[in-house]
Amino acid sequence: MGVTIRDIAEKTGVSITTISQILNGKGSRFSEATRNKVFQTAKDLAYKPNFFAKNMVTNQTNTIGMIVPEVTDPFFSQMVKGAEDYLNAHDYMILLCNSSQDSTREDLYVEELLHRAVDGLIIASPNILASNVFTQLETLHKPYILLDRKRHHREEGNIFIDDYEGGYMATEHLVALRHTKIGIITSDDSFYSVEERLQGYQGCLTKHGISASTTWIMEGDQTMSGGYIATKKLLETTDITALFVTNDQMVVGAYRAALELGITIPEDLSIVGFDDIELAEYMAPTLTTVRQPIYDIGKTAAEYLLRAIQNPTEKMANKKMPLKLIVRESAKRLEAE
Amino acid sequence: MGVTIRDIAEKTGVSITTISQILNGKGSRFSEATRNKVFQTAKDLAYKPNFFAKNMVTNQTNTIGMIVPEVTDPFFSQMVKGAEDYLNAHDYMILLCNSSQDSTREDLYVEELLHRAVDGLIIASPNILASNVFTQLETLHKPYILLDRKRHHREEGNIFIDDYEGGYMATEHLVALRHTKIGIITSDDSFYSVEERLQGYQGCLTKHGISASTTWIMEGDQTMSGGYIATKKLLETTDITALFVTNDQMVVGAYRAALELGITIPEDLSIVGFDDIELAEYMAPTLTTVRQPIYDIGKTAAEYLLRAIQNPTEKMANKKMPLKLIVRESAKRLEAE
Repeated sequence: MGVTIRDIAEKTGVSITTISQILNGKGSRFSEATRNKVFQTAKDLAYKPNFFAKNMVTNQTNTIGMIVPEVTDPFFSQMVKGAEDYLNAHDYMILLCNSSQDSTREDLYVEELLHRAVDGLIIASPNILASNVFTQLETLHKPYILLDRKRHHREEGNIFIDDYEGGYMATEHLVALRHTKIGIITSDDSFYSVEERLQGYQGCLTKHGISASTTWIMEGDQTMSGGYIATKKLLETTDITALFVTNDQMVVGAYRAALELGITIPEDLSIVGFDDIELAEYMAPTLTTVRQPIYDIGKTAAEYLLRAIQNPTEKMANKKMPLKLIVRESAKRLEAE
Repeated sequence: MGVTIRDIAEKTGVSITTISQILNGKGSRFSEATRNKVFQTAKDLAYKPNFFAKNMVTNQTNTIGMIVPEVTDPFFSQMVKGAEDYLNAHDYMILLCNSSQDSTREDLYVEELLHRAVDGLIIASPNILASNVFTQLETLHKPYILLDRKRHHREEGNIFIDDYEGGYMATEHLVALRHTKIGIITSDDSFYSVEERLQGYQGCLTKHGISASTTWIMEGDQTMSGGYIATKKLLETTDITALFVTNDQMVVGAYRAALELGITIPEDLSIVGFDDIELAEYMAPTLTTVRQPIYDIGKTAAEYLLRAIQNPTEKMANKKMPLKLIVRESAKRLEAE
């Protein structure tokens, strides 16, 4: 490895901060002896400011810490990709941490990343973070973006979608196709704002004078297997003709459940999903779903964060990301009986 | 944030290394004045060795750097999961880096992670790493595991599968089902050891006296869309009855290509995949595929790495991970005509 400021620190006994300032031409408050020692040692060791050393001097590391709940979920890996593409194009790299939805681990990772002197953080979290996490971030003046379903009240830097609107949109598509018995697969309370999507579904049904049965609502894990189990239960106990599945991972399981019960999509059952993961257009039938701009959410978070790093006094903007219904083959018009 | 060794370093002007040694009771070679100054400052600042400070003292950070080519690929996110579960259970955390298959970025990330004092590295790479990367790793005595298709010759710590055997296994299953016109979807040379899988396919056909046509081989990108395009081309130009697709992501596209051409799986075309991603058992028909123990590869890498960190003088073992044909519905016996 090339010679770093650390090596100079070890050799001279002068602190890294001091050396950084001296080498960066901001060392006038230090004694001439110290300055000479540092310059001489840098010369003796053939110190060359490389990419990282340069960053140490400018007090920037050009790395961003990013914490996500579950990296194996294509939703989050897309979000990471969006952030990463933007950051890489601007010479920043990501140190990625997987919290497994665990709030203790999130707190530890924030601390860990701060110890490693990242320039800023993007935290996608389903949890309320410990208050000392915010104290740390504020004390160190580290900009951060929360992708947190607006669980923490902040005046600035909120990047979000309207989940109520999304739930309404999915349900309205099914109503427009003449369905009146419309089920919904929800999930336990986690990162996804499923509660508001459920309210959107209910709001839409009420608006159209459809009185929903509570038996039409089934909860499951936010996985393929969770979607499979919940859909199977729902289809075995109700006579719905349409189904809103609140995330696309669960739709994969819903398709299998229908197949095993001899129920054909969309002839016997129309399905609308949520997210629009890559797989949606490869499924048979292709999936009608509410598209979240997942990649753009990650990208926008990165963009806002870099702006905050470069303009520390400026307030960050808030941004509502647009949702869009992508109509494919999985939902069809109910023929009059 | 709690008081850290860094704060003591700033206050005293004594280097972090020195303070660590003094607080860790290994400071006898430093002057009594220095030792007193450090202890007094630690007391003044109400310094408490917390998780991370403790690690700085013991010269361990309990973090592992992991570099993967593409985090959005379910193959790698499974691998990360395996490593992470093992490491978390042993109080280690992962800093994850996505190289996007880019070798310059890999080199930068290694440097970056070393600057951040990780205890060891797991590097999943399709590339030949720059030789100075190894110099750095060796100089700093940082243990590392390469998941690299054995591209670098190392005597120890090789965790691998036999891709030739896997390709042979997939093809033999199709031959046993009486197929003689068997195509293969390969991909550009990247992380996956597709070349050896192709050789396994060819070796198996030769063994059974089947002379393969070069028109049966089609290359594509290792994505759903790559699989779709390659399969479509292949099915439009040949009369194969079976197909070995060398990774499961591409199978998703292959299914769609067959569907659009009115070719039914497995009645008109038998398919065998490679990897056994989670989706494989949800597809319609469910996918017969060669299972790679992806999760276990990550887990084993983590296990070997921790062992190397704890026993720096011991040589790491090599381990060949087992492959297994998972028979589901996508390949069926060819009826005599």
